[in-house]
Amino acid sequence: MRTERRADQMRPVSIEPGFLTRPLGCVLIAFGETRVLCCASIENRVPPWMVGRGKGWITGEYSLLPGSTSPRARREASSGKISGRTQEIQRLIGRSLRMAVDLEKLGERTLWVDCDVLQADGGTRTAAITGGWVALALAIDALLRAGELRESPIARQVAAVSVGIVDGETLLDLEYREDSRADVDLNVVMTGTGELIEVQGTAESHPFTPASLAQMTALAHAGISELLEIQRRALEGCGAARPV
Amino acid sequence: MRTERRADQMRPVSIEPGFLTRPLGCVLIAFGETRVLCCASIENRVPPWMVGRGKGWITGEYSLLPGSTSPRARREASSGKISGRTQEIQRLIGRSLRMAVDLEKLGERTLWVDCDVLQADGGTRTAAITGGWVALALAIDALLRAGELRESPIARQVAAVSVGIVDGETLLDLEYREDSRADVDLNVVMTGTGELIEVQGTAESHPFTPASLAQMTALAHAGISELLEIQRRALEGCGAARPV
Amino acid sequence: MRTERRADQMRPVSIEPGFLTRPLGCVLIAFGETRVLCCASIENRVPPWMVGRGKGWITGEYSLLPGSTSPRARREASSGKISGRTQEIQRLIGRSLRMAVDLEKLGERTLWVDCDVLQADGGTRTAAITGGWVALALAIDALLRAGELRESPIARQVAAVSVGIVDGETLLDLEYREDSRADVDLNVVMTGTGELIEVQGTAESHPFTPASLAQMTALAHAGISELLEIQRRALEGCGAARPV
Amino acid sequence: MRTERRADQMRPVSIEPGFLTRPLGCVLIAFGETRVLCCASIENRVPPWMVGRGKGWITGEYSLLPGSTSPRARREASSGKISGRTQEIQRLIGRSLRMAVDLEKLGERTLWVDCDVLQADGGTRTAAITGGWVALALAIDALLRAGELRESPIARQVAAVSVGIVDGETLLDLEYREDSRADVDLNVVMTGTGELIEVQGTAESHPFTPASLAQMTALAHAGISELLEIQRRALEGCGAARPV
Amino acid sequence: MRTERRADQMRPVSIEPGFLTRPLGCVLIAFGETRVLCCASIENRVPPWMVGRGKGWITGEYSLLPGSTSPRARREASSGKISGRTQEIQRLIGRSLRMAVDLEKLGERTLWVDCDVLQADGGTRTAAITGGWVALALAIDALLRAGELRESPIARQVAAVSVGIVDGETLLDLEYREDSRADVDLNVVMTGTGELIEVQGTAESHPFTPASLAQMTALAHAGISELLEIQRRALEGCGAARPV
Amino acid sequence: MRTERRADQMRPVSIEPGFLTRPLGCVLIAFGETRVLCCASIENRVPPWMVGRGKGWITGEYSLLPGSTSPRARREASSGKISGRTQEIQRLIGRSLRMAVDLEKLGERTLWVDCDVLQADGGTRTAAITGGWVALALAIDALLRAGELRESPIARQVAAVSVGIVDGETLLDLEYREDSRADVDLNVVMTGTGELIEVQGTAESHPFTPASLAQMTALAHAGISELLEIQRRALEGCGAARPV
Repeated sequence: MRTERRADQMRPVSIEPGFLTRPLGCVLIAFGETRVLCCASIENRVPPWMVGRGKGWITGEYSLLPGSTSPRARREASSGKISGRTQEIQRLIGRSLRMAVDLEKLGERTLWVDCDVLQADGGTRTAAITGGWVALALAIDALLRAGELRESPIARQVAAVSVGIVDGETLLDLEYREDSRADVDLNVVMTGTGELIEVQGTAESHPFTPASLAQMTALAHAGISELLEIQRRALEGCGAARPV
Repeated sequence: MRTERRADQMRPVSIEPGFLTRPLGCVLIAFGETRVLCCASIENRVPPWMVGRGKGWITGEYSLLPGSTSPRARREASSGKISGRTQEIQRLIGRSLRMAVDLEKLGERTLWVDCDVLQADGGTRTAAITGGWVALALAIDALLRAGELRESPIARQVAAVSVGIVDGETLLDLEYREDSRADVDLNVVMTGTGELIEVQGTAESHPFTPASLAQMTALAHAGISELLEIQRRALEGCGAARPV
Repeated sequence: MRTERRADQMRPVSIEPGFLTRPLGCVLIAFGETRVLCCASIENRVPPWMVGRGKGWITGEYSLLPGSTSPRARREASSGKISGRTQEIQRLIGRSLRMAVDLEKLGERTLWVDCDVLQADGGTRTAAITGGWVALALAIDALLRAGELRESPIARQVAAVSVGIVDGETLLDLEYREDSRADVDLNVVMTGTGELIEVQGTAESHPFTPASLAQMTALAHAGISELLEIQRRALEGCGAARPV
Repeated sequence: MRTERRADQMRPVSIEPGFLTRPLGCVLIAFGETRVLCCASIENRVPPWMVGRGKGWITGEYSLLPGSTSPRARREASSGKISGRTQEIQRLIGRSLRMAVDLEKLGERTLWVDCDVLQADGGTRTAAITGGWVALALAIDALLRAGELRESPIARQVAAVSVGIVDGETLLDLEYREDSRADVDLNVVMTGTGELIEVQGTAESHPFTPASLAQMTALAHAGISELLEIQRRALEGCGAARPV
Repeated sequence: MRTERRADQMRPVSIEPGFLTRPLGCVLIAFGETRVLCCASIENRVPPWMVGRGKGWITGEYSLLPGSTSPRARREASSGKISGRTQEIQRLIGRSLRMAVDLEKLGERTLWVDCDVLQADGGTRTAAITGGWVALALAIDALLRAGELRESPIARQVAAVSVGIVDGETLLDLEYREDSRADVDLNVVMTGTGELIEVQGTAESHPFTPASLAQMTALAHAGISELLEIQRRALEGCGAARPV
Repeated sequence: MRTERRADQMRPVSIEPGFLTRPLGCVLIAFGETRVLCCASIENRVPPWMVGRGKGWITGEYSLLPGSTSPRARREASSGKISGRTQEIQRLIGRSLRMAVDLEKLGERTLWVDCDVLQADGGTRTAAITGGWVALALAIDALLRAGELRESPIARQVAAVSVGIVDGETLLDLEYREDSRADVDLNVVMTGTGELIEVQGTAESHPFTPASLAQMTALAHAGISELLEIQRRALEGCGAARPV
C-alpha cells in the first residue's frame, strides 16, 4: 500500500522541547508532516465546581491553525463556536492526560495543556496527546524545581497512536491520504506499561470484527512503545527528571 | 455485585413504537429506568455542503430533558450552547446510524433522529442508538409505503450497549449507580451480524488491558444479540416490513 | 363548525401524575392530542438578584420537542438561541405560577417548572400552566412530607385555557386546525375562585369588540372550572393533600 | 391617589414629527416623562420565509437606551442577547402594527418600525405603538408621494394605552411610580373604531375579576380616543394625507 | 470643493445639556447634521479585574440607532454581536475619556459614557468624544454637589475632530458625503492645552506623507480649539463649575 | 534606558519563509522575542457584499496562541467571542494589506492573511503586518507561477513598526517591558516609498505634542526602511519575483 514505510512502521517522530519559552512546559511534536505545538501552563485555582475538594484539574484545548490545512481551516473564534469535532478531541485529550496525574498530589491547581496544530496530516489528536504529556511533564518538573510542588504528581506515562484498515490492510499511524480512505479508524491511548486508557474505533465505511479490533490494538501497542521511548529521550535531553 | 441481575444480564428492555404520532417513526425505548424518546423525521433536502452529490444525510440530536435527572439537568437552550458531552453523543449517534443506511439510496434527503432522554439511569447513548435505529426503520417503512422511496436504503441493523468494570467485575449494561463507580466504561455499537461500528472505551480510574477489552467486547456482543431480537420484534409488532 | 364537540366543550383532558420519577413533582397532561410533560424541581438557592430577600422564586421553562410537530420543530439548543415565542410563553408560565405561591413561605428556594411539549395540537401554553400547577403542588407536597417545609406556600389554584373566534363562532380550547384559522385568540389564566391572573387576547386577522372579550372570558371561565376539578382529582388520586 | 391628574386622565401627550430626517417616517412621542423615538424605514424585500407570497411584512424593534432609566439600563448589544421582556414587547409592537396595514397592498416590502426609548417613565410599550403608527403612516405617505405605492395599504388607525389598579383605584396611563405598585397592569391596543387588537392583563400581586377587566378596558377606550385624535392632528400638522 | 463652508471651517456645532434627565450628565451634541446623545452614568463599583486597586474606570459605549442612517442601520442587539467598527470606536472613546480623569481621585466607581448616534452624517466618533466629555463633566459636577466626591477628578479637557484629504484638499470636519470620497481620514483627540491624546490616520485610497500628517494635525488643532470653547460655554450655560 | 540596543535600533528581525507548507504563502517573523506565524491563503470567492463587483478582498485575522504569553492567554474560541483588542488589530491588518494590492487585478478572490502570535513580547501587530505582507507576496507569486493570475496585483510594499515614549525618551520597536511603561504608543504602517498608510498614536498616561508625533513618525520611518530591506531579502532568498 504505502511506499515509504512498512504497514507497522511509524512516520518519523520528533519532539522538540522549548520551542516557546513563555509556558512552563512546551514541545513541538511531529508525526511526519503533522506538527503540533503542545504547551502546558499552570493556574493556581480550579474550575468553580471543583473548589474545596483539595484536588487539581487538567484541561486540554485543541485547535487547528487556519494555515494547518489546505484549503484553509476556518478559525473557530471567528465563527463564534467550537465545532463538535474539536470538542470531542479536547475531551479526549483532557481525559487521557488526567489519567497521567494524581490530581490530589497536584493540589488545587489547573494545568492547561494547549495543543495547537500547525500542520495537519492525519493523527493530530494522537500527536497532541503524546506531545501534551511531555509538555505536562516539563511543567511539573519546573514546579518541582521551583519548590511549588514537593512531590511529583505524575502517575503514569501516556502516549497515543492511530491505526486503521485501508484496502484490507492494517496500517499504523495513518497520514491524511490514508486516513481519508480508511474503512476503520482506531485511536488508542496507552500507559507506559502497555495498559489502555482510551480506545476509540470507528467504522468509516465497513464494520469490523472483534478480531480486527484485537489486531489493531496490538499494532497500536507496538507503535506506542516506540513513542514512549521518544518521550523519555526528549525529557532526558533537556535534563528533566524521569517522572515515572 | 448487583443484586437484581447477573453480571451478563441486560436490564429489562422495552421498545414502544408509536408513542408520538407526528414523526414518521417514533419509539419510546427503556433500558431499565432509562427511558429515551427516539423520533425520526424526514426533510427533503440535505445540508449545504452535501447539495448536488445525490446522497442523503442522517443527523442525530440528543438532549437530556431537565426532569430526566435529579438534581435537575440545566436546559442547554437556556445556556445558549451545547455541552461537549452532548456534542460527543450526538456525533456518535449520527455516525452509528449513518452506517445503517445506504445514503445514495436515501437520495437527497435528511433523516433527523431526535433522541430525547426522559429519564436517565445510565446507558442513555446506547439506548438512543438502539431505539433510534427502530425509529429510523419505521420512518423508512413509512416512506416506502407512501411510495416516496422505491427501494429500502437500510443496509444494516444497528444496536448498542455499554459494558464496564466495577470492583473488578465485568458488568453488562451499567445503570447509573454502577456507571458512577466504574473503573472502565465501554460503549459498543454493533451490526446485526455481530460486527463493530463503534467502540469507545475509557479508563475512568484505572487503565485496562487489551485482554479486558476483548472480554468486554464479547460481553457487549451477547447483550447486543438480545437487543437486535427486541428491535425485530418491535418492528414486527407494528407490521413494518423486515428492513434487512 | 367542529364536528366532534360543542363550541363550549373542552377536548378530553387527562392528567397523569408520576410519569417520570426523578423530579419532585411530575405530570403528563393531555388536552386532546396536545401532550405536555410538566416537571417541578427544587433548588436550594435563588437567582443572584433575589439573594437575601428571604423569598423564593419560580421559573417556568417551555420547549417544543422536535418530534412534537410535523414538520419537525428545530431544536432551540442547536440554533443557539431561544425564540421570541418561547420566551413569551416562558414568561407567561412563570408569572402565572408565581401567583399560585406565597414566595415568602417558600423561603430562599427556586422551583423550576419545566414544560416540555411532547405533542403539539394547539393550547400548549394553557396545558403547560394547568399541568405545571399540579406538578408544582406535588413538589410542595413532597417537601412538606419530607419536613423541608412546615407550612404549605400554595396560595391559589391556577389553571388556563384558550378561547377563540373562528368563522364568527366563539370556541373553547382551540386545537391547531382551529387556532390557525382563528380571527381572535385569547389565553386566560384563572384562580380556583374564578379570578383572572392573565388575559392575553390577540386579533389574528380581525379586531374584536369589548363585548366579545367579555363573552370569551366567560367561556374561558367555564372551561377552567372543569380543569380545576380535574386538577383536584389528579392530586387526590395520588394521595397528595389538598393544597388550597 | 395621584395629585396632578384625575384617575381617568392621560399624562400630557405630544407627538413631534420629523425629529430625525433619515427615516421615511419618524416621530418623537411623549407620554408625560416617557419619550420614545419611533422611526419607520422601508426595505424592498421580505424575510426569507415570506418570499414569493406577494405580501409585505412589518417588524417592530424596541430598545431602552442606557440613559433612559436610572440606574442605567444595560445595553443589550453588549450582553449579546435580547431579554425576554424586550422580545415580548417587540412581538407586541409587530403584531399591533401589522393589523394596521393590508400586507398584500404593501407588496413584497418590509417596514421596520424602530422604537427607541429615550426616557422611561412607564407606558413605553403603549407610547411605542401609538408613535409607531404615526411613523408608519408618514412612511406610507412618503411612498405614495414618491409613486412607489399607488394605493395606501393602511387599513386601520392603531393606538395603545395602559391601565392599572393601584390601591384599589383604576388608573389610566400609569407612570413608573404607579406601575411599580400596581396590583394589576393592563395594556390595550385599539383601532380607530374602538375595537380591540391586543389585550394583555397581568395580575402583579392580586388577581382581578372579569368585571374589573371590563371596567379597565372601558377606561382604556377613553384614553385611546384621545390618542387617536392626537395622532390625526400630528399627521395633519405635517401635511400628510389622512390615511384612513 | 464644498460650497457652504471653507476647508478649515467646522460645521455648525451645538451642545444641548439636559436633553434627558435620568443620567447624571447628558448632552445632545450636533456637528452639522450629525447628532449624538451622550449620557454619563455612575456605578458604585468597578469591573472585576479592577477591584481593590482604589481606582475608578470609565467605559465608553457607542451605538448607531437604526434610524440614524439611510438605509436603516441594523440593530447590533438583534444580530447578537457588536461589529468590529463599533468595538474600535468604543475603545477609542473609552481611552480618550480616561485621559480626562484622574482615576484614583474617582475612587472605585465606574463612569459609563453612552454615545447613541441619533443621526449620522460623518464625524460621529469625534462628536461622541466631544459631547461625552461634557456629559462626563456634568456628572462629576453633580457628584461634587451631592457630596459624593470631595475633589474633582477631572484632569483635562478633551475634544476631537476629523480631518481628511478629498480631491487633494485638506478639509476639516468631514461630513458623510466628503468622508466617503476621502483619500485619507484622520481622527484627532486633543486636550485643552493642545496636546494629543489619540491620532488615528488611515489611507483610504492613497498613502499620505508625514508632511500631510503634520498639516492635517495642525488643521485639527484649529477645529478643536473652537470645540473646547463651545464645551466650556455649554458647562457655564448650565451653571456647572469649570472643571479644569 | 535600554541596555542592549540604542533608542533608534530595531530588535533583531528575521523572516523565515516556508515554515509551513500548506498555505500558498507562509513566513515566521521575529521581532526579538516576538514571533508571529503569517500565512496567506486564497479562496476563489469574495464576501457576499462584494459579489459581482469584479474586485477581490483581503481579510486579516489575528490571534494570540494561549502559550504566547505568561500567564496563559485565554483562547478566544473558548470564550465564544473575539475581544475588542483583537478586532481592532484585525481591522488594522486588513486595511494595511488591502493598500498593498490592486483589488481589481486580484479579481473576485479573497486573500486570507492569518497572523498567529506564537510568542508575544510587544509589537505583535507591527510584526504581523510586516510578515503578513511577505506571506501575501509569496502567495501572489505562487498564483502567478501557477498561471492563475497573469499580472501581479501587488501595488505597494508595506511594513510597520511601533515607536513609543518611555521616561521621556523616544524609542523604536518597543518590547513588552517598555511598552507596558510607555507614556505614548505609536504604530506606523508605511509603504516602500516612505508614505503613510496608518498612524495610530495613543497617549497611555501623558498627552504628547504634535512635535513629538513628527519626531516619532520620523523614527518609525527609519525602522521601516530596515524592515523593507529585510522583506525584500526574504523574498529573494526563496526565489520569488520582486513584486514592486
